[in-house]
Amino acid sequence: MPELTSIVYLLLTVYLLCSANGLPVVRDITKLPQDSFGRPGLSHITVAGSLMHGLKEVEVWLQTFAPGTRTPIHRHSCEEVFVVLKGSGTLYLAPSSHSKAPGTPQEISIFSNSTFYIPVNDVHQLWNTNEEEDLQVLVVISRPPVKIFIYDEWQMPHTAAKLKFPYYWDEGLYQSTVKDEL
Amino acid sequence: MPELTSIVYLLLTVYLLCSANGLPVVRDITKLPQDSFGRPGLSHITVAGSLMHGLKEVEVWLQTFAPGTRTPIHRHSCEEVFVVLKGSGTLYLAPSSHSKAPGTPQEISIFSNSTFYIPVNDVHQLWNTNEEEDLQVLVVISRPPVKIFIYDEWQMPHTAAKLKFPYYWDEGLYQSTVKDEL
Repeated sequence: MPELTSIVYLLLTVYLLCSANGLPVVRDITKLPQDSFGRPGLSHITVAGSLMHGLKEVEVWLQTFAPGTRTPIHRHSCEEVFVVLKGSGTLYLAPSSHSKAPGTPQEISIFSNSTFYIPVNDVHQLWNTNEEEDLQVLVVISRPPVKIFIYDEWQMPHTAAKLKFPYYWDEGLYQSTVKDEL
Repeated sequence: MPELTSIVYLLLTVYLLCSANGLPVVRDITKLPQDSFGRPGLSHITVAGSLMHGLKEVEVWLQTFAPGTRTPIHRHSCEEVFVVLKGSGTLYLAPSSHSKAPGTPQEISIFSNSTFYIPVNDVHQLWNTNEEEDLQVLVVISRPPVKIFIYDEWQMPHTAAKLKFPYYWDEGLYQSTVKDEL
């Protein structure tokens, strides 16, 4: 019965290649789902995620910003580390203070092979201010899924910032998680 | 007094470019200190670290393994995510079980632009089994600084694995932190 042996071998291989939650251990990032989540010029990939892959303490994203594309002005109470893989742009950062609003931010140049982290609750915005080239960043956050407070502008009081949870890329996954639990 | 104004302006600029602990916000990864920590063929850079930069919840490393270079067989109780930036190699992984020792591991191919994560306490080893090319990975861990249990071989009982803490790249920093606190 060589066919049966082959099937058993195939099943064993698939089992060995899969982790407990049914995902392959090693995944090709270029084949992972990417989406703009309604933000033109953005490509977001959840490389390793809480709701998507069951991670509890860290989450990793790969994001590409076309020229002119930016994040909202926002803050979160998790740690966040960026590694710039390609391109350049500007980090706008308003260190947390006792002021009622973030106020005018620092403008800091970011570039290929640079790294920076956003201290907990510092209000920030990432902007591809390079008109020629895409900006590609690898983003690491702690305590996923991310809980983001969004500001309309830098003078908006902290208390008026709006919580967006689940965040755009977690939305569908969060709903299905909640449904699974019902 | 134009000189004094210039000095004040310079100091203000330096202040604005620096975070609370005196480090520039944005750092050039190619200029960060790298070391083999006594392991020939390894280049380790702490891109964003607990003892080095004051992060509390995540840590990011950039590691390059020359052909034939490998990590020890080890486990840790934090989460760990890998992103393969260049090259290829093999991940040896023994999922945690009720056995007394890791046992023969799975051998899983890793490649450029692939990602994988190591579930908490799974015993693993990363090996550049590609004889031609360096393997470069970005590594993310939770709960830094890392506490690593090292195995001499895959049949070694879990209880015999030796704790190496602080780990090689944290050693000097950990000692100076402890000295600062005395």
